[in-house]
Amino acid sequence: MASGDDGFVTPPPTPQVVIVGGGFAGLYLAKGLARAPVRVTLVDRNNHHLFQPMLYQVATAALSAPDISAPIRSVLRDQANAEILLGEVRSVDVAARSVALDDGTVLRYDYLVLAPGARHSYFGHPEWETLAPGLKNLEDAGEVRRRILLAFEKAEREPDPVVRQRYLTFVVIGGGPTGVEVAGAIAEVARFALRRDFRRIDPRDATVLLLEGADRLLLSYPPSLSDSAKQVLRRLGVDVRTQTLVTAIEPGVVHAAGWRIPTDTVIWAAGNVASPLLRTLGVPLDKQGRVVVGSDCSIPGHGEVLVLGDAAAYTHQPGYPTVPAVCPAAIQAGKYAADLIRRDYRGRPRVPFRYRDKGQLAVIGRARAVADLHRLKASGFFAWLLWVFVHIFFLIGFRNRIIVMFEWAWSFVTFQRGARVVTGQWEPATGPQRRAGSE
Amino acid sequence: MASGDDGFVTPPPTPQVVIVGGGFAGLYLAKGLARAPVRVTLVDRNNHHLFQPMLYQVATAALSAPDISAPIRSVLRDQANAEILLGEVRSVDVAARSVALDDGTVLRYDYLVLAPGARHSYFGHPEWETLAPGLKNLEDAGEVRRRILLAFEKAEREPDPVVRQRYLTFVVIGGGPTGVEVAGAIAEVARFALRRDFRRIDPRDATVLLLEGADRLLLSYPPSLSDSAKQVLRRLGVDVRTQTLVTAIEPGVVHAAGWRIPTDTVIWAAGNVASPLLRTLGVPLDKQGRVVVGSDCSIPGHGEVLVLGDAAAYTHQPGYPTVPAVCPAAIQAGKYAADLIRRDYRGRPRVPFRYRDKGQLAVIGRARAVADLHRLKASGFFAWLLWVFVHIFFLIGFRNRIIVMFEWAWSFVTFQRGARVVTGQWEPATGPQRRAGSE
Repeated sequence: MASGDDGFVTPPPTPQVVIVGGGFAGLYLAKGLARAPVRVTLVDRNNHHLFQPMLYQVATAALSAPDISAPIRSVLRDQANAEILLGEVRSVDVAARSVALDDGTVLRYDYLVLAPGARHSYFGHPEWETLAPGLKNLEDAGEVRRRILLAFEKAEREPDPVVRQRYLTFVVIGGGPTGVEVAGAIAEVARFALRRDFRRIDPRDATVLLLEGADRLLLSYPPSLSDSAKQVLRRLGVDVRTQTLVTAIEPGVVHAAGWRIPTDTVIWAAGNVASPLLRTLGVPLDKQGRVVVGSDCSIPGHGEVLVLGDAAAYTHQPGYPTVPAVCPAAIQAGKYAADLIRRDYRGRPRVPFRYRDKGQLAVIGRARAVADLHRLKASGFFAWLLWVFVHIFFLIGFRNRIIVMFEWAWSFVTFQRGARVVTGQWEPATGPQRRAGSE
Repeated sequence: MASGDDGFVTPPPTPQVVIVGGGFAGLYLAKGLARAPVRVTLVDRNNHHLFQPMLYQVATAALSAPDISAPIRSVLRDQANAEILLGEVRSVDVAARSVALDDGTVLRYDYLVLAPGARHSYFGHPEWETLAPGLKNLEDAGEVRRRILLAFEKAEREPDPVVRQRYLTFVVIGGGPTGVEVAGAIAEVARFALRRDFRRIDPRDATVLLLEGADRLLLSYPPSLSDSAKQVLRRLGVDVRTQTLVTAIEPGVVHAAGWRIPTDTVIWAAGNVASPLLRTLGVPLDKQGRVVVGSDCSIPGHGEVLVLGDAAAYTHQPGYPTVPAVCPAAIQAGKYAADLIRRDYRGRPRVPFRYRDKGQLAVIGRARAVADLHRLKASGFFAWLLWVFVHIFFLIGFRNRIIVMFEWAWSFVTFQRGARVVTGQWEPATGPQRRAGSE
């Protein structure tokens, strides 16, 4: 503090922390700075925080979009030192300590924390994206829901049995947690939720294929749980194919390991690539486009620029090749960064970020899951109950928790799904003429 | 029944009823034919039935789209004689007794019941539609919600006070029930739900204008209730202007009764025009494009073609100039048509359709409404409670009822709105550069 001649103390300007991304890392960081002597500006291109682990439930019509989202403004409403800007950051100028937004706005920072997340990687085949959408945000989930539900509608209208079977074939590419959860959910929709709704088709005739390039599902889990997951999926009627690399996706057909699979509905759950924003930093990125950060999550040569969450490759972790791209890791990184900034202002030394792996959980269809909590490995109903409690706990917003618990209880009892609504224009497949009234 | 030489009875072919539209009229008709000796094919371009009276609550972020929708297949699941086709009917050939769908499918019918509903009428100014969207389906509601919520976001980012005020000005055109409900809801959002969420603007500074060409709101209600509605809206801060005809809508400005109103958010609630499908019938239509039906809801010369709901002008009603375009009228018409078809097959004469007007209700903002039940006229909290119970009763689906009651109770207690989620890309208004960190 500088003390002037007149006896008044002139406070230094309040330092500005700019956070890019309102996911788990960005939000927990902002909350962690509530009482720090800084101003916080959080920039996100969406007005809502999204609970990504449950996105597949929106895609498979179990939940509505608002159930797993919370307005970022509401979450940070009572935090006087935080403001929210709806916008997209286009580039970072680390020398000038500023970021440029899409509308030309320039934000100066003392600390910059980048947590922009990841998008899908199509392994050099960007043309596959329209044929095989992935699941990262609510638009993706809406598009996947639309394709799944309309595929059954098209099949109901289709007189040609070969074309009808193509409509009733669903291919999920990638056997990680998302792929396993989506494949299980589609099988459940076909077997239970839609069972009695059609007159000409039996939705239980649907084929759900889960294709994985490696030799087992859930590579990051212990092999015993990969086996459990495969067994549960098979009981649900999912055709699980490991060591099956996709070589081409064309309209109406997927090619994989020599197979030609006629299908109109393909869902991509196979790979991630970090936000292209990171390329503007001019620092080394790994193969997935993530910034290789130091042990304090900072970029080389700039201790005031941190990268968190799915955008960071934390290569310094002892015992882990890297920190997984899961929500607990993002939460821990957000809390760590808040602590780091507070320490800096108190003149205390930085300590390295340490990820504490509490375990992994994945749901498989109706009331079944696999859990790996290191000491405890479980699969089946108990693992599912654990999944339910952990996810309700981390879901942001008391209202969301109540609604989601009701929707789950309702689905569990009735076998129905509450959000079977498709918006947007119905695009018919132009087929042969059919005289419905004269059969 | 024809009895063949071999002693077996050959049944006549089952008559085919084709219903176009899964709104209240079409759905109640289909359900009314559950035990009739007919086959029912219901064609709708959406997979869901929509509870239109609550659409404005989706548009103002109080409810999610699935809360007020039910999959038509689920509603008719247990009705073995009904099938659902997702598709759009393009034309009717009354001579050949067939309808043609968008994909070339041709459906033959013995009875055709058209209940395709209405769209907005812009009174010869179709170019106003993109500037002033209306509220008829879930896409409309999503678009209106998006515009309302993003207007506050743009205002928060806008340094120019004149432009900021333009973003914070909301114009609702049309003082019927929808206009009154939307204007009240926007005022409530600004005053309560968003109050503490912004740092640079105070959402309570928003101006909500309700423009009506006639000399009072709610023309179809008794004048005393029009006055009550105006008083309640004014207490909510809505600027109600009657005898204010809109003469032009341009990007960023509305012209009405000599006023020039700078605004970026305009919502149209002023006029309806029936579905263009009706023009393919070749029968007289009224000014709003509705079919002038006979006392049995049939078209001239074709007793087997009925028109119901918002698509019909029932000019024969004694004591009413016409039946209003409200949900109870559509339900009554659907039940009447089912009864008519059953009577025809029993050889009983047709009786004319009689609309029983049970009264009208409109919500105004937070926990206030106006009700006209003929013997009982009420406004305020009691009328709102009545509105709540009537709407929960007519909402289709037990699950929807529970969710909506919870959402309303939650909003009532917390002043919050549960569905404040905007999807789709954020489109920035290109404004002057601003250095957020240096203010």
